[in-house]
Amino acid sequence: MSLLDQLLGSQPVLEIFSDKARVQRMLDFEAALAMAESRLGVIPTAAGPAIVSQCMAESIDFQELAKAAVDAGNLAIPLVKQLAALVEHHSPEAAPYVHWGATSQDVIDTGLMLQSRDAISLMVGDLDRLCSLLAELADRHRNTPMVARTWMQHAIPTVFGFKVAGWLDGLLRSRVRLIGLHNQAALQFGGAAGTLAALGTSGLAVAQGIASELKLVLPEIPWHTQRDRIAELATALAALTASLGKIARDIALQSQTEVGELSEPAKAGRGGSSTMPHKRNPVNAAVILAGAEQTPFLAGTVLAAMQQEHERGLGNWLAEWETVPKLFRLSSSALARMLVIMEGLEVHPDRMLQNLELTNGLIYSEAASMALAERLGKKEAHHLMEELSRKAIAEKKHLADVMRDEPRVTQHLDGAALDRVFDPKAYRGEAARFIDRVLAKHNTIVKAVATAKS
Amino acid sequence: MSLLDQLLGSQPVLEIFSDKARVQRMLDFEAALAMAESRLGVIPTAAGPAIVSQCMAESIDFQELAKAAVDAGNLAIPLVKQLAALVEHHSPEAAPYVHWGATSQDVIDTGLMLQSRDAISLMVGDLDRLCSLLAELADRHRNTPMVARTWMQHAIPTVFGFKVAGWLDGLLRSRVRLIGLHNQAALQFGGAAGTLAALGTSGLAVAQGIASELKLVLPEIPWHTQRDRIAELATALAALTASLGKIARDIALQSQTEVGELSEPAKAGRGGSSTMPHKRNPVNAAVILAGAEQTPFLAGTVLAAMQQEHERGLGNWLAEWETVPKLFRLSSSALARMLVIMEGLEVHPDRMLQNLELTNGLIYSEAASMALAERLGKKEAHHLMEELSRKAIAEKKHLADVMRDEPRVTQHLDGAALDRVFDPKAYRGEAARFIDRVLAKHNTIVKAVATAKS
Amino acid sequence: MSLLDQLLGSQPVLEIFSDKARVQRMLDFEAALAMAESRLGVIPTAAGPAIVSQCMAESIDFQELAKAAVDAGNLAIPLVKQLAALVEHHSPEAAPYVHWGATSQDVIDTGLMLQSRDAISLMVGDLDRLCSLLAELADRHRNTPMVARTWMQHAIPTVFGFKVAGWLDGLLRSRVRLIGLHNQAALQFGGAAGTLAALGTSGLAVAQGIASELKLVLPEIPWHTQRDRIAELATALAALTASLGKIARDIALQSQTEVGELSEPAKAGRGGSSTMPHKRNPVNAAVILAGAEQTPFLAGTVLAAMQQEHERGLGNWLAEWETVPKLFRLSSSALARMLVIMEGLEVHPDRMLQNLELTNGLIYSEAASMALAERLGKKEAHHLMEELSRKAIAEKKHLADVMRDEPRVTQHLDGAALDRVFDPKAYRGEAARFIDRVLAKHNTIVKAVATAKS
Amino acid sequence: MSLLDQLLGSQPVLEIFSDKARVQRMLDFEAALAMAESRLGVIPTAAGPAIVSQCMAESIDFQELAKAAVDAGNLAIPLVKQLAALVEHHSPEAAPYVHWGATSQDVIDTGLMLQSRDAISLMVGDLDRLCSLLAELADRHRNTPMVARTWMQHAIPTVFGFKVAGWLDGLLRSRVRLIGLHNQAALQFGGAAGTLAALGTSGLAVAQGIASELKLVLPEIPWHTQRDRIAELATALAALTASLGKIARDIALQSQTEVGELSEPAKAGRGGSSTMPHKRNPVNAAVILAGAEQTPFLAGTVLAAMQQEHERGLGNWLAEWETVPKLFRLSSSALARMLVIMEGLEVHPDRMLQNLELTNGLIYSEAASMALAERLGKKEAHHLMEELSRKAIAEKKHLADVMRDEPRVTQHLDGAALDRVFDPKAYRGEAARFIDRVLAKHNTIVKAVATAKS
Repeated sequence: MSLLDQLLGSQPVLEIFSDKARVQRMLDFEAALAMAESRLGVIPTAAGPAIVSQCMAESIDFQELAKAAVDAGNLAIPLVKQLAALVEHHSPEAAPYVHWGATSQDVIDTGLMLQSRDAISLMVGDLDRLCSLLAELADRHRNTPMVARTWMQHAIPTVFGFKVAGWLDGLLRSRVRLIGLHNQAALQFGGAAGTLAALGTSGLAVAQGIASELKLVLPEIPWHTQRDRIAELATALAALTASLGKIARDIALQSQTEVGELSEPAKAGRGGSSTMPHKRNPVNAAVILAGAEQTPFLAGTVLAAMQQEHERGLGNWLAEWETVPKLFRLSSSALARMLVIMEGLEVHPDRMLQNLELTNGLIYSEAASMALAERLGKKEAHHLMEELSRKAIAEKKHLADVMRDEPRVTQHLDGAALDRVFDPKAYRGEAARFIDRVLAKHNTIVKAVATAKS
Repeated sequence: MSLLDQLLGSQPVLEIFSDKARVQRMLDFEAALAMAESRLGVIPTAAGPAIVSQCMAESIDFQELAKAAVDAGNLAIPLVKQLAALVEHHSPEAAPYVHWGATSQDVIDTGLMLQSRDAISLMVGDLDRLCSLLAELADRHRNTPMVARTWMQHAIPTVFGFKVAGWLDGLLRSRVRLIGLHNQAALQFGGAAGTLAALGTSGLAVAQGIASELKLVLPEIPWHTQRDRIAELATALAALTASLGKIARDIALQSQTEVGELSEPAKAGRGGSSTMPHKRNPVNAAVILAGAEQTPFLAGTVLAAMQQEHERGLGNWLAEWETVPKLFRLSSSALARMLVIMEGLEVHPDRMLQNLELTNGLIYSEAASMALAERLGKKEAHHLMEELSRKAIAEKKHLADVMRDEPRVTQHLDGAALDRVFDPKAYRGEAARFIDRVLAKHNTIVKAVATAKS
Repeated sequence: MSLLDQLLGSQPVLEIFSDKARVQRMLDFEAALAMAESRLGVIPTAAGPAIVSQCMAESIDFQELAKAAVDAGNLAIPLVKQLAALVEHHSPEAAPYVHWGATSQDVIDTGLMLQSRDAISLMVGDLDRLCSLLAELADRHRNTPMVARTWMQHAIPTVFGFKVAGWLDGLLRSRVRLIGLHNQAALQFGGAAGTLAALGTSGLAVAQGIASELKLVLPEIPWHTQRDRIAELATALAALTASLGKIARDIALQSQTEVGELSEPAKAGRGGSSTMPHKRNPVNAAVILAGAEQTPFLAGTVLAAMQQEHERGLGNWLAEWETVPKLFRLSSSALARMLVIMEGLEVHPDRMLQNLELTNGLIYSEAASMALAERLGKKEAHHLMEELSRKAIAEKKHLADVMRDEPRVTQHLDGAALDRVFDPKAYRGEAARFIDRVLAKHNTIVKAVATAKS
Repeated sequence: MSLLDQLLGSQPVLEIFSDKARVQRMLDFEAALAMAESRLGVIPTAAGPAIVSQCMAESIDFQELAKAAVDAGNLAIPLVKQLAALVEHHSPEAAPYVHWGATSQDVIDTGLMLQSRDAISLMVGDLDRLCSLLAELADRHRNTPMVARTWMQHAIPTVFGFKVAGWLDGLLRSRVRLIGLHNQAALQFGGAAGTLAALGTSGLAVAQGIASELKLVLPEIPWHTQRDRIAELATALAALTASLGKIARDIALQSQTEVGELSEPAKAGRGGSSTMPHKRNPVNAAVILAGAEQTPFLAGTVLAAMQQEHERGLGNWLAEWETVPKLFRLSSSALARMLVIMEGLEVHPDRMLQNLELTNGLIYSEAASMALAERLGKKEAHHLMEELSRKAIAEKKHLADVMRDEPRVTQHLDGAALDRVFDPKAYRGEAARFIDRVLAKHNTIVKAVATAKS
């Protein structure tokens, strides 16, 4: 592992995409292939178990593998050679049947599918935990007044729970995408050019055997150079990372010294600066944003690599080999870091309330305009509020005070009505119902997961 | 329209994304909003129809709109202003209720959703026609021998129909994605900051009214800064274009003068060169490839723009405005051009057969090795074939002749058996069954479409 | 022009890349070609002027051009056809010599080079104006105390002029790149496959003639499929836009309601919201950021399109046709918008000073630590300051007060020394000299420009 | 090192970007800093050498470093901590002066600059070797007739040397860019927020000291968040890789079984297939193309990451840490692989000649038309050749034969003239002079390098 792996990656997913796991998943394919073929009598009955018994990454010489790949052009050719040598050593008669009827891309693509499915499983677990934390957070803060900001400027009042519900809503859609990808993980098995020609009329049966052994979907046809499955994976991971990036961006903005509404959970040694004791750098947000900065380009790489020539591409297929694992690393790391944040996010409702007051009541001008519109008509109310807002700014007064002194206002709105206008909890429209709708959607998923587990 | 629009675009989709259609779709939102609100009594009953009657792009001053947008920062603000002025002129009492409770992003996003849905409808139609052509082509050439190529080198024999079935398979998955996007097209309606605060407790009811009017999905919560829906659209279009690009790439390669297996349909004036009469430039493939070159980056742009700040982004939302239409333009144009190709693709089975012979029989070496393996064991067979292949190359003989002269071969394989090895139609494994599987999937879709229509 | 062009583009550069200007620049190539050839006797002497006289975009039927390009695959073929028809009509004997020896790509690439050079000229003018404004701003605020922020958190004090000098420094490097590109704009002229074969032994002389006519660099060899020149253009524009985007990002952050240190220049109707009178949306920053969001992907597109096949690419060349103009549009628009900002940027030194106080003196803790280190040693000083900072936070006191009450401090630092520590103007190291270095570099350029003009 | 590193990387550049070298280069900065400061009396005279003596990557606990970085958010903080502990152990009085006045970004950025400069040095060496091979190749094949191809179709005859000269021309421009980057490698040194405040009035002097120690350029001002230098590096590497990708693409196309004009150098075990003895997979081209597929997106990542906030970015700076090394790895690997190709490229002039004959003489139609035009006028000649070409195609005759039988031809062109038209060596215009111009440019560089070395 490299120095930056832990900083920029999530340990369990790093392991799934480690060299060892990569090789093991390729060997899992070889094992399933051998078993399927021996069961069907395509290769001798004894050859299957003999091959399977050697399919352990521990037996592989990785240095030799890396070196041989330089001229072979991929890992499968030298790996199969090593496997065959191992089998040759233990059960010479089985050795010729290693990799029987398969091609390098079958091994590599199926291996990647297995790694991807494992990683998605883990990530869905993290995502479920994160969504539950967000659901609680949204519910807890359904009445916490806060400034809504558009164009990075104060707009109108809102509640923090509504913002969190929006975050959650995006992630729930990502969950649906990930589950879909998990369930569609497909076998790759086509032999030299997709037709399984070397297996005569047993090809499809062998394919079915492998797919059932590895619990993968048997595709209609091998997809050596139809890479939309990989692209769908890549873009779903990029979209997830971007949704997490959006949350991290909001948190970073709300954690600014001047804003102070949120802080990443404090931890000794995290994000601190020895000479600047007031600093608490949002390290987790930074790592998430670093991921979100890169994943759109990595997804683009996979999309661009889809034009794979004829029955096996030249170069473009290779371009996936590091790109897809990197997408997993960055997205899973963003997920893990967001989980760290949400497990201890510090929310400061006092600062949220304070910030609502920063504009001397102007943030309530839409609310005031709407309240007056019922009596004056929209246009009249609007013009009046424009005038009063200008006055409040010019005289550096609070808008509430300006309105209380204005007969054109007070003849329509009494003191209580004006208090309602400037009540930070009052002007929030459908926030509660929108929160409830998102929580209900979340609940449905939680229940479905519980049912599936029981 | 610009000079390059027709060359690089498809007319019907260009029209959906024309300035006029863009404005009309924004006005459609305003009309639906006004109707929903007047029906619910949120605005006066008469105001709804009065506003609706002015929601015609024809009445809009586009020059003024373009100019006013420079300072407004978007098209919605000046458009609403123009609309309000029109209503003011015809029904002054309704004018204050134009755009009641909505925000610019509601208009613009919903307008984009409507345009997108229209475009997807058209594109699914084209895609269905294209898939049917490919299905026929795959079926027609299920026995047309051809070279399979890997790493851009001859590999083993295959049939052209198998290749076409692979193309079709990828497109069928794109169809599923497009239909999903079509059906999930969602309303955007949240007012200034998503809470619909200006509508008090009527917000959700109004939202339901608009959604039902425009036949859009009512989302759980407004998605002003949760842009994964847009990203899903963008990446699906990019994946479609890439799948088309892969086909175009294959066709271009097979149309090379030296290969000559396919030609784009001939047409007077298309792709010709005045001084080089032998040239028939694959113009349609070129346009498709030009699209596939750009769409991964455009999809990446949309993914990168997902980190929209707080309740309305700064800059990143604007980055979608031209990017999404361009994705539609390039993908629909790639689709239309592929349809032109497939309506008249010239297939040259004679050249396909000829190319199979280019390696003096070496392309059958895997087949030969497999045939011998049944008798000699895989290893023995393999070594023998290596030796004979080297001999064929060194002596510039056809591999069949070398084998016919070789006792170690002839004692196992008689003349008929050897003929089978070198029969271009013989070594194709599961090609037919794979083709059938893809055609069956296609058939299911065709039937579902027919049922839906009837 | 499209509805969004003015909002997202800069008028003069839009015009350079308009359909008409594009066609005129292509005709300029045809004119220069004809003149060079007639002068050299490659075509009849009279043919040159006869052709030149028809090279006016006004005479071209644009609708026909756009339509004919669909099958021709580019604009040059139908344009040359129209030009030949015009010449045929006025000077029939000259008509056969239109486009003599040239290929479509010669016309299109050279046309693009001419447009690019024009656009760069304009942009360098804007950039020079912008740099002068920034130089003045840096100088004016060389003593304006401000918070320096790292990780989006308060770090230590700085001066606003130092920040501006950093902005300027980046732009000065962009200027160097643009000038380089301007001066290297190269002729494209190679005929059908780069060898100018149709011109026999006159090819290079004709090339020299055209280059000198159009004041373009004569390249060592035609560069039809060596596209690094285009990529250098694209990446330089993207880097410029990103540098502008960085400034816009800073301004947007400093314009936040809670920060309030900067505002875009106010203008009636710009960035306002009818119902939220306190809002002043940073519209110019938004457009700049929208550009900076897209240009990295557009530059990537051009880099990816560099793998153009053989002597004329398939598809990838086409991918440049809209991408390069779009890069110009977005970068020139970002430049023009930044000029608007800098012509009226509102700087609020009072808010800058206020923000320095937000951490109750903690922002001076590095300064305090350094002052104590001279007496206590770094380690001791550091530990003491950590302790006092914690105390200040816990007791909600200003750090200065805590230090004044602490004997371990006061035995080393007297009142005056402590005042210096907490003087917002004191702790700024080499800020002034760094500003001077950047201003000196700017001055050198200003003088060189003045000299060149005089 | 990971399993794929050797396959997809070049060993010497992998080492420059290894964990150990990364750490060593960071320590080199710390050593230079300490020396400069002790010489200037900023820290005690003895502290400099005491710190320098511990700046060895061998002493660093890498596992601890990787782990500590997770919360620290970068490698510099824990590295400095380890270094300080080492110094503390050996020379306790020097320990407080480790990293004196510097910030994490100073260490990391300067370290990256040093690694980059080392890598560029190596790469320029490789590039020079490659260019010399290409220069020889261009010269050797200046008279080797070959088909020029446009739109992936036969166009007109050319010579192979001309094509190679085009390849070389692009690479020579990349060389200029790399040298520029090498010479502009700049120190990063600004302290906490760029002003070097902690060093009082000695900051600039220390900066000069470090720059001179490390032989780096002293920039006008620290560039913590002005990242165009990094972007220039990234885009230059991407452009180089793309130029190499273009060559690899051409080679792959010319190596197709049907074309057979070029082959990668043969080597036992490279690119072979055990069951398909005729295959010689262009493994080197594939790796180059895999690099060229990814680098445009990596360069885009760096451009997008330029919008770094305020005085230190959040996330975007982190996005560079793996992206820039990956760009170096892919570009240097592409370079090394191209060197392998060019050291043994097999050129098959016989196949080139054969391919020229594939169109039955039609490839000479432009030449014929030009020859006739001198007598008949361009228009007449053109019409006649169109007629004769159609006839040749229809009657499946060689165009030369059709022309020899045609009185309208023979009255103007005698047998010898016709032979010249169909001479594959005749119609090549300025190919030789263009080759010479490129070789002359190459020669100038070679001489300059020799002079610099002597």
